[in-house]
Amino acid sequence: MKLAIVGATGAVGQETLRLIEERYPQHDNLKLLASKRSAGRKMDVNGKTFAVEETTDDSFSDVDIAFISARTEDSRRFGPVAAQAGALVIDDSSAFRMDPAVPLVVPEVNGEDLDWHNGIVSIPNCSTTPLVMVVHPLRQASPIRRIVADTYQSVSGAGGAAMNELRDQTRTVMHGGPAEPDAQPQQIAFNVIPQIDSFTESGYTREEQKMIDESRKILHAPEIAVSATCVRVPVFVSHCIATHLEFEEAVSPGEARELLSEMPGVKVLDDPGSSVYPMPVDAAGSNDVFVGRIRKDASHSNGLAMWVVTDNLVKGAALNALQIAENAVFRGAVHGKSK
Amino acid sequence: MKLAIVGATGAVGQETLRLIEERYPQHDNLKLLASKRSAGRKMDVNGKTFAVEETTDDSFSDVDIAFISARTEDSRRFGPVAAQAGALVIDDSSAFRMDPAVPLVVPEVNGEDLDWHNGIVSIPNCSTTPLVMVVHPLRQASPIRRIVADTYQSVSGAGGAAMNELRDQTRTVMHGGPAEPDAQPQQIAFNVIPQIDSFTESGYTREEQKMIDESRKILHAPEIAVSATCVRVPVFVSHCIATHLEFEEAVSPGEARELLSEMPGVKVLDDPGSSVYPMPVDAAGSNDVFVGRIRKDASHSNGLAMWVVTDNLVKGAALNALQIAENAVFRGAVHGKSK
Repeated sequence: MKLAIVGATGAVGQETLRLIEERYPQHDNLKLLASKRSAGRKMDVNGKTFAVEETTDDSFSDVDIAFISARTEDSRRFGPVAAQAGALVIDDSSAFRMDPAVPLVVPEVNGEDLDWHNGIVSIPNCSTTPLVMVVHPLRQASPIRRIVADTYQSVSGAGGAAMNELRDQTRTVMHGGPAEPDAQPQQIAFNVIPQIDSFTESGYTREEQKMIDESRKILHAPEIAVSATCVRVPVFVSHCIATHLEFEEAVSPGEARELLSEMPGVKVLDDPGSSVYPMPVDAAGSNDVFVGRIRKDASHSNGLAMWVVTDNLVKGAALNALQIAENAVFRGAVHGKSK
Repeated sequence: MKLAIVGATGAVGQETLRLIEERYPQHDNLKLLASKRSAGRKMDVNGKTFAVEETTDDSFSDVDIAFISARTEDSRRFGPVAAQAGALVIDDSSAFRMDPAVPLVVPEVNGEDLDWHNGIVSIPNCSTTPLVMVVHPLRQASPIRRIVADTYQSVSGAGGAAMNELRDQTRTVMHGGPAEPDAQPQQIAFNVIPQIDSFTESGYTREEQKMIDESRKILHAPEIAVSATCVRVPVFVSHCIATHLEFEEAVSPGEARELLSEMPGVKVLDDPGSSVYPMPVDAAGSNDVFVGRIRKDASHSNGLAMWVVTDNLVKGAALNALQIAENAVFRGAVHGKSK
């Protein structure tokens, strides 16, 4: 089975390759694609050296599954081309997520939606995925009416350039120099920025709107009320979410811990007395969504508050995409050439 | 009028002295007090050099107003002693805040509570103050039923040692070294910590419980439901609060902006189309509480969401204390010796 990685040199692309090595250590039937600028670059995967190729309309004729994690315009252009060529496209951009003809999938939550894809499957925004991973199992206790989610998102969500900017700008600011933002809209060193993506008419950012719309689509629950504030923090990897949930009936923290412990891909780290709770530096590099600080929400009789952390490049992006591929193959939902 | 500053060498103490120079450039009737360790240190205020003295039970006999910003146990020990000696004590610790006999005051919100003090007035926690500064004027539009507040708090809230730790640890981590937390309970460089102060039985931290309890006391509104998640972020100065408010009746963002614009000490910075919103690096050093990102809360028909930022050392601490002193003098609520 031939896998194409579009955006192979980017932060998520590199994480995808690392996970391919981890999960399929024999697999070297790969095609590494990127922009013209990165074409020719050599990358080693599973002991084989690949030359990165420029993505073109002809890149997908021999491809079974195409992972796209590049600019949204690249997804718009090459997603349909790759699907047309018979590849299953697993796309990391917002281009198709809200398209009713495109499943938006977190396999542990709505893997069944893979059965009706038309060649393209979208993966959610990297803050939406951990949120629905935690919300979904809790619905067994009682239907959820409302979600308030305020995020603490690392710069890697904005790509490698933003990670370099945090590193370089931190050094500059520590030496008394000016911040000069470029990859981020404002200074990120020793600052927080309450803006991720651009603003919509409603005053919400597109990132916030994604969390609202995508959560409902994945959960098949348009009736759930969702609000979000998405904030960039000076952290390299992992996103955190201060989460407030309202249920139809009261759910105890103990019941929530039990349901979350049983959810594949979720790890409960919740022993505040011993200072055990999830944090970005600990979650980085891990496959799991971590949840802790589970407590009765003091402001609502049927509420729970909790703290959710995951590596935004792993379960927030590359791992979720690979899990979709695995599930799709298992379900016979890949109609490729070389199977 | 003789002012004593207990904790003069600390982060808030130094900010208090800076504000005294700014607001009363002639005033040098001061007594700088600190722990034994800092005694003897020289500090210049308004052109006069003061030797820092060790705080003792005898420090307050000639003092009219004593600002205490030290360890909570120092407040517990010296607060009553200073009040007994006839000074008005303005205390920055949590020692007396919830004591029904002690007013907890943000002058713009509940200055009238200064009229019934018994020698001690508490100032709120540095996250509570900006929250009530924003909530209070909005109650003119409609009573508030519920507040959900998730914070992004700078290390200066934990004092000078935590600021040094962020600086040194950032350098160490950038060079690949280990974090070795000391002033903070966990690594703070390029990380966020969902713990400020210790945990209570309910799963809330004491810092979160302070925001809940103190807000209601200041607002004279025990009926308001409040929830908070308090998080430390790698920022030197200023605290941010992602704030979600529920009103009895719908309040429009425009109405909220108007009411907030009229509130003394609050500045509306809300033009997202031009990327105008408050941030820690901009708020640092300013007297104001800044509010932006004011929008209808997408998850509640009577809700508003907003983003609040203030310098935690200024309005969050030193400025609020000085304003209490000014208001108390104006109200004749200082019963000192040298007036």
